[in-house]
Amino acid sequence: MGLPKAVRLFEEGPREGFQIEKGPIPTDRKIALIDALSATGLKRIQTASFVHPKLVPGMADAEAVVAGIAMRPEVTYTGLWLNDRGMERAIATGRLAMIGRISTYASDAFMQRNQNTTYDAHMKAQGDMLDAYRARAISVEGAFVSAAFGCNFEGDIPLPKLMRVVRDLFALFSEHGTAIETLWLADTMGWANPEQVRRTVGAVREAFPETTIGLHLHDTRGLGIANAFAGLEMGVADFEASVAGLGGCPFAGNPGAVGNIATEDFVFLCHELGIETGINLDALIDCARMAEDIVGRTLPGSIMHAGKLNRV
Amino acid sequence: MGLPKAVRLFEEGPREGFQIEKGPIPTDRKIALIDALSATGLKRIQTASFVHPKLVPGMADAEAVVAGIAMRPEVTYTGLWLNDRGMERAIATGRLAMIGRISTYASDAFMQRNQNTTYDAHMKAQGDMLDAYRARAISVEGAFVSAAFGCNFEGDIPLPKLMRVVRDLFALFSEHGTAIETLWLADTMGWANPEQVRRTVGAVREAFPETTIGLHLHDTRGLGIANAFAGLEMGVADFEASVAGLGGCPFAGNPGAVGNIATEDFVFLCHELGIETGINLDALIDCARMAEDIVGRTLPGSIMHAGKLNRV
Repeated sequence: MGLPKAVRLFEEGPREGFQIEKGPIPTDRKIALIDALSATGLKRIQTASFVHPKLVPGMADAEAVVAGIAMRPEVTYTGLWLNDRGMERAIATGRLAMIGRISTYASDAFMQRNQNTTYDAHMKAQGDMLDAYRARAISVEGAFVSAAFGCNFEGDIPLPKLMRVVRDLFALFSEHGTAIETLWLADTMGWANPEQVRRTVGAVREAFPETTIGLHLHDTRGLGIANAFAGLEMGVADFEASVAGLGGCPFAGNPGAVGNIATEDFVFLCHELGIETGINLDALIDCARMAEDIVGRTLPGSIMHAGKLNRV
Repeated sequence: MGLPKAVRLFEEGPREGFQIEKGPIPTDRKIALIDALSATGLKRIQTASFVHPKLVPGMADAEAVVAGIAMRPEVTYTGLWLNDRGMERAIATGRLAMIGRISTYASDAFMQRNQNTTYDAHMKAQGDMLDAYRARAISVEGAFVSAAFGCNFEGDIPLPKLMRVVRDLFALFSEHGTAIETLWLADTMGWANPEQVRRTVGAVREAFPETTIGLHLHDTRGLGIANAFAGLEMGVADFEASVAGLGGCPFAGNPGAVGNIATEDFVFLCHELGIETGINLDALIDCARMAEDIVGRTLPGSIMHAGKLNRV
């Protein structure tokens, strides 16, 4: 497949970013960033995660953040939850688009460390989550596979292992009377390389041609944008990214871990390749600079520092 | 063409990096970095540039740096010069491999700003340089084209314009009784995208199939490694890179300009793709960290901060 004509970009910065910051970020600054992102043309923004405040103190104000957003009708605002209680909190805000997803891990070691559970127990819990979505009439988008390309704790994730997890997910959805519309493959700890992205996307698509594949790529070891390019060349059109490269996984156990690919760098790549994003790059670069100002340190994004191409 | 089996990596860090630093870097620290790089498996290291110390104060100690290197027989140590006087200084060190190159610019605006000359006058001077190489029995490697993919001062460089410059270079070499063994295409200010790299490499190779194409890529806007990957996929096997991403062009007129792709990130990419580099990545990462310590600030390289993949 060739490059897509357009991509759908899902902004993860407010969640990915603020969940790992050490000091508290004022709630109104989080809201200001989300409001600015809302004016860039981004169509979906993940605003917060509803996890236990003891585990992720930076998300203790999730409800206050969501309550404060000046919501625009053209933007879908989402939240992240990992269990029933988190979902209930998200519903209780009364302001978020409830989009049902389940999450699993291609790495048993990472699942153990992150969720303190086993593969079978976790998959059963995810099945219960699918039932909970149905009981609440929440539409199910699909599934998210963390550490799909490799893991700092387990090492390489061979493609056959990932494919077993993917097949189990499809079986689980089927058992629970629903289907995976989008399967997200996440390179949570920056293990992927462009050939592996191609091979993996190709294998999943061949096995499940009806399902949309989304990529969530971290730029931990500098290959994030090259991996995204490889995904685009495979026709992938759904990407999660993080403004300014905000974030990183608090459980990745790697002090040098960095966040997702920077949304604005990826938008720049897409525009240079003639791929539509619907995003105003100038406005998004302004958001990236605002994010840097909020966290008070240099963030990994490139074009926010170098400036756009000055075409004459 | 597919991926090459092996790449030749030309280390540019000591020159690219130290020429732009604001404060003076002690000569012995420069030497220590070059000595450490010499032990990584790198086969060619550019040690310094012989330019006027008023223009590039950071290179005023070029002779002292070259004199201090603990040279290894398996490494080729080179220098950069832009005119006859610089070449004479490099010769006078008595320690450098004299490899003849000429340089030109695909951007007239950048040439004017950088060299204060016109295209015709510059090409004539490059012809004189070819004569000077012949007079001194210096073997000629080829030519280097700066701003081959775009320019902060001139904007886009359309492929037909670049191809005119390339054809002029081939004609010039022919007139002076020699040939271009390697043609270096430099993305001096970070304008290239992966498709453009492919298109450009393809066009040059079609026109001049006997010539090796080398890429010198800056990571100014985050696409450097993706561009390198696109080059690899076109079978390009010659790359200049800069340890830790040291450097940037002092004349690029862009405060956010960053240096070449980080050598160690590119080596990591190559190894993940099964391409031989002959380089010990651990040793090179140590060099990158040393470079960061020398300049006293965070450098752009990724894997030096994240650490290698921890395969189990």
